[in-house]
Amino acid sequence: MLNQSPSLDLMFQALADPTRRVMVERLSRGPAPVSELAKPLAMSLSAVVQHLQELQASGLVRSEKVGRVRTCRIDPAALRIAEEWIAARRAIWERRLDRLGEFLAAQPDEPNQGSKS
Amino acid sequence: MLNQSPSLDLMFQALADPTRRVMVERLSRGPAPVSELAKPLAMSLSAVVQHLQELQASGLVRSEKVGRVRTCRIDPAALRIAEEWIAARRAIWERRLDRLGEFLAAQPDEPNQGSKS
Repeated sequence: MLNQSPSLDLMFQALADPTRRVMVERLSRGPAPVSELAKPLAMSLSAVVQHLQELQASGLVRSEKVGRVRTCRIDPAALRIAEEWIAARRAIWERRLDRLGEFLAAQPDEPNQGSKS
Repeated sequence: MLNQSPSLDLMFQALADPTRRVMVERLSRGPAPVSELAKPLAMSLSAVVQHLQELQASGLVRSEKVGRVRTCRIDPAALRIAEEWIAARRAIWERRLDRLGEFLAAQPDEPNQGSKS
């Protein structure tokens, strides 16, 4: 039961690293070859490729090789799955607060028991 | 520069585990003592407490001990930070697609160069 969503595991794991978030951020502005993804990152190309592989395993990023150039792009549908998981939990919490507010507002204004009569 | 958001690291790391997501899911329905969080989970109480500590370190969950009972609650503001990071990246991508669509729509309908004249 706990393992129904292995892809959420991989997506959140992929997003838990600042380098990979920089790569997602870059790709949100449009597709890019691996060399361009690597440019702002202070690490070897092979380290960048490892991060890219983790992003691809999670489904957040796809890539395609044409000739000698591998171009990466984001998958917004995968981003949406991760976003909606969090949003749904927050919505449940907020509906609960709304119901609590309605319940309290519906209580008649009675004097406290125990107050002077 | 890459380490500006250590809390995002911890939040996404916390959400990358299915047990911890079950705990967040339960807490989105209202505060709960640790014993109740542990009930549906097939693991020792100390393993649950370790998961809870990771959720607390990330800021997604807070807890308070009154007498002998530790009650846990979700922090919806922290959930929102993680959600909004993803939503912002997706929005950048979608605005880019919109601009591309507008650009293409604004092109005059010219016959292809190279077509028969």
